[in-house]
Amino acid sequence: MVVTVVHIQVKPDAIAPFIEATIKNHDAAVKEKGNLRFDFLQSSDDPSCFMLYEAYESDEAGRDHKTTSHYLTWKKTVADWMQKPREGIPYSIIRPLKWK
Amino acid sequence: MVVTVVHIQVKPDAIAPFIEATIKNHDAAVKEKGNLRFDFLQSSDDPSCFMLYEAYESDEAGRDHKTTSHYLTWKKTVADWMQKPREGIPYSIIRPLKWK
Repeated sequence: MVVTVVHIQVKPDAIAPFIEATIKNHDAAVKEKGNLRFDFLQSSDDPSCFMLYEAYESDEAGRDHKTTSHYLTWKKTVADWMQKPREGIPYSIIRPLKWK
Repeated sequence: MVVTVVHIQVKPDAIAPFIEATIKNHDAAVKEKGNLRFDFLQSSDDPSCFMLYEAYESDEAGRDHKTTSHYLTWKKTVADWMQKPREGIPYSIIRPLKWK
């Protein structure tokens, strides 16, 4: 099991369309084989800052996500809305021992 | 529902005892009324960097966590092991709509 935490800051006028596009990506991602979680969060302090909390059963399942049509559509849709390049940070899981 | 993401960097020689103390905190926290998640993660790039992903049903439930004996014991136990002050970032949840 692996987690990738993605930090995203979008341009202020892109907040609403970014949320819409990312909900579509979320809705499809949670149906992927191997997906454990795909939480979509918005900073309480800065509404232009978002976090994706993506958990997969394996590195391979995480890589497969990046080949799906919903991910590729999302990536292309949001590209011009980034305030700065987004950052993905990989984590290993200490607890919980079981996720689903 | 609210999420707090806590970033923690510990001194290199404190990694093992920090993990042990935080597992105890995790094991008790997930039994709290109002807790939805308390994930304990370790950076794949830097083993001295950890993340707690704490989800609660309400702000009040999150505040109650900080009054529990297991939290207060953890806070005291790990105090001298911090490499820098830990940082808690509050998030609102866009998706999923249901957590449990």
